[in-house]
Amino acid sequence: MAWEDASSRVALRTMFDAAVAAADPRHVLSAHLPDKPRGRCVVVGGGKSAALMAVALEDAWPDVSLEGTVVTRYGHAVPTRRIEVIEAAHPVPDANSERGARRLLERVRGLGPDDLVLALMSGGASALLALPAPGLSLADKQAVNRDLLACGARIGEMNCVRKHLSAIKGGRLAAAAAPAHVLTLAISDVPGDDPAVIGSGPTVPDPTTFADARAIVARYGIAPPPAAAARLARGVDETPKPGGLPNSEFRLIAAPMLALREVAETARRLGLTPLILGDALEGEARELGTAMAGIARSVRTHSLPVAPPAVLLSGGETTVTLGHGPTGRGGRNTEFLLGLAVALDGAPGIWALAGDTDGIDGTDDVAGAVLAPDTLTRVRAAGRDPRAMLAAHDSHTLFDLVGDAVRTGPTLTNVNDFRAILVG
Amino acid sequence: MAWEDASSRVALRTMFDAAVAAADPRHVLSAHLPDKPRGRCVVVGGGKSAALMAVALEDAWPDVSLEGTVVTRYGHAVPTRRIEVIEAAHPVPDANSERGARRLLERVRGLGPDDLVLALMSGGASALLALPAPGLSLADKQAVNRDLLACGARIGEMNCVRKHLSAIKGGRLAAAAAPAHVLTLAISDVPGDDPAVIGSGPTVPDPTTFADARAIVARYGIAPPPAAAARLARGVDETPKPGGLPNSEFRLIAAPMLALREVAETARRLGLTPLILGDALEGEARELGTAMAGIARSVRTHSLPVAPPAVLLSGGETTVTLGHGPTGRGGRNTEFLLGLAVALDGAPGIWALAGDTDGIDGTDDVAGAVLAPDTLTRVRAAGRDPRAMLAAHDSHTLFDLVGDAVRTGPTLTNVNDFRAILVG
Repeated sequence: MAWEDASSRVALRTMFDAAVAAADPRHVLSAHLPDKPRGRCVVVGGGKSAALMAVALEDAWPDVSLEGTVVTRYGHAVPTRRIEVIEAAHPVPDANSERGARRLLERVRGLGPDDLVLALMSGGASALLALPAPGLSLADKQAVNRDLLACGARIGEMNCVRKHLSAIKGGRLAAAAAPAHVLTLAISDVPGDDPAVIGSGPTVPDPTTFADARAIVARYGIAPPPAAAARLARGVDETPKPGGLPNSEFRLIAAPMLALREVAETARRLGLTPLILGDALEGEARELGTAMAGIARSVRTHSLPVAPPAVLLSGGETTVTLGHGPTGRGGRNTEFLLGLAVALDGAPGIWALAGDTDGIDGTDDVAGAVLAPDTLTRVRAAGRDPRAMLAAHDSHTLFDLVGDAVRTGPTLTNVNDFRAILVG
Repeated sequence: MAWEDASSRVALRTMFDAAVAAADPRHVLSAHLPDKPRGRCVVVGGGKSAALMAVALEDAWPDVSLEGTVVTRYGHAVPTRRIEVIEAAHPVPDANSERGARRLLERVRGLGPDDLVLALMSGGASALLALPAPGLSLADKQAVNRDLLACGARIGEMNCVRKHLSAIKGGRLAAAAAPAHVLTLAISDVPGDDPAVIGSGPTVPDPTTFADARAIVARYGIAPPPAAAARLARGVDETPKPGGLPNSEFRLIAAPMLALREVAETARRLGLTPLILGDALEGEARELGTAMAGIARSVRTHSLPVAPPAVLLSGGETTVTLGHGPTGRGGRNTEFLLGLAVALDGAPGIWALAGDTDGIDGTDDVAGAVLAPDTLTRVRAAGRDPRAMLAAHDSHTLFDLVGDAVRTGPTLTNVNDFRAILVG
């Protein structure tokens, strides 16, 4: 098969759709379900995919009496039949986050050893299930969070402190469910897919301690509100430690690398040699585009790191740093593509697609875009300057201008960004 | 073999030395020599490696009566026995560049069909062999060059105009040598290794025309000095076109990809699986470090794109954009490593070496450095902040602080940057 414009575009879109499908709980959840329980089946969960995961479960187990509650983001609910859905705020929690978390804890209390708790976790759960430890207010927790963010604490450090100020995070939900068996089915959008990081791990043991949390607060010179400071100083009510939640089991049902492996299979069926470069590539979006241009050129010129026809696949989440100038319509995936395009400068035989698997590249209704060798030529023919549009972060406008923006609508799932560079 | 700190460092340094050796004309030139000529053997050449290439030729052909001249940069001469060496200015030509170029043309005139001209070309030759076309002064040529640079013309456009204002570039040297056979032996430090680009191709046919040169000057609204404008308008004395130099042959004896392939063999002998990502990776140095960190982490975590123990190899030339703050001692290779280090944040089992094959990473006497998992810890233990040092482009200081700067001295050759990331 010759890789011409039409075939390359179809192949890339097929691969993007395969990535989204690999992250869709309606496709992947049922394969991870255990035997049906002898006792009750209680469903809890949180995250931007929580409602869609609940639907997938209801579809997979039509004959099981499911009860329970999941918390998702405003606008992310879908109709369920048996499982309750609560909507709450993200990324800053609101009263519904607190109500939702409290309801989840109520749901799992008083269960027996024959009962099963299914915990449906996905990105955003940390904010959507926000219940301060007894004696603390949501405002107390948020003040500490804000200070940690402002002082440049690492994500691992922030999670340690959060877990020790929370009534649900750091394994406390699973502890409350004992002696029932807890099975967590998770969709990961975090680098490394660490179960303790996804939604701050409400069903996962926490290796960190109150002493760690106190050291972090001291290291950054943070003065927590009195109730939070008192709780950290007292150090009573420690999170469950590794080995301390024998009733809890964790299964990743969707993750960036799982999706990339699926796409690699799709690529092979299309006659392309896939090369997965990584599932957690980060950095400034346009600069990752420049780096990838060098690799793609080498494929074309030297058949290295892989011989064409091939596709370079990667996931992860890039960054777009805004300058002081005016800012147009754009997102990190289309900015990546535009950086790639400028570096490739019309090099023949190279096409690409980048998109956010959640269907929203930034804040617009654009999921991503397709880049072709003639993209910049067509932009210039329309009287616009691609470099100026890159400088203005106006990449959605650019790809809309040439009719190559990709729109999927919100997918209600998320395994982060997807990038495919096809070298024919 | 377990990849511990000592063995990883030795392997990385062995690979860097292999890259430099693969670019050293004393190792690679002799294999590309033709049969010894029946007639005279005239040597011409230009570039930062010209003198070392001349020595390599003298060593390889001790019994051939070699005559000729090469032009190298001030400070890049080495003692030769038979071939004359002229030193000239780089990157801005001086009177010696003009004298050298004139001398090369004299050397090749009046030769016969049994004579052989060996042209030894390497990076920098374009400035080191600068002879304006008849009627033009060096100042005329430089004025046009300056204007082209200032208006953002592409490198291919600048070369087109330069060749049509030169008495030696764009194949004119080879044309002057006819009917003698001309064999060019070249060391490439340019992306794509295009023979017409290395030193502006004095022995290589030029596909561009006076009409192209006039169009470029018009496109950017440049007003050349009267003599240059007149020459372009007249359009007489066209460069040799493809097919028009049947006496001229071109062989690449060293290039970034040739060096990377050599290093890949070295890596295999060391028990590492090599993956060559490309020979022309560009972009902001620290951002390429961030991108590479994602790939290295994936090797470690997912055995993709290659299973460990492995080494990710790449070449090309990155950029360091200076901010407004104070600037320390640094170069693009060590800045790449520091960007990589910050992104890896101490991830275990990953070591790296980056260095300039010319032995000079920037302007300092540092060629590059070695990064280990504990590098940042050691920097912090010494009371310094790695992120602050990165922001100040103070990477040479940082690697000197922990004793991990690599110093080779000037190598008198150059196949650009070399980067190896070892994942144990």
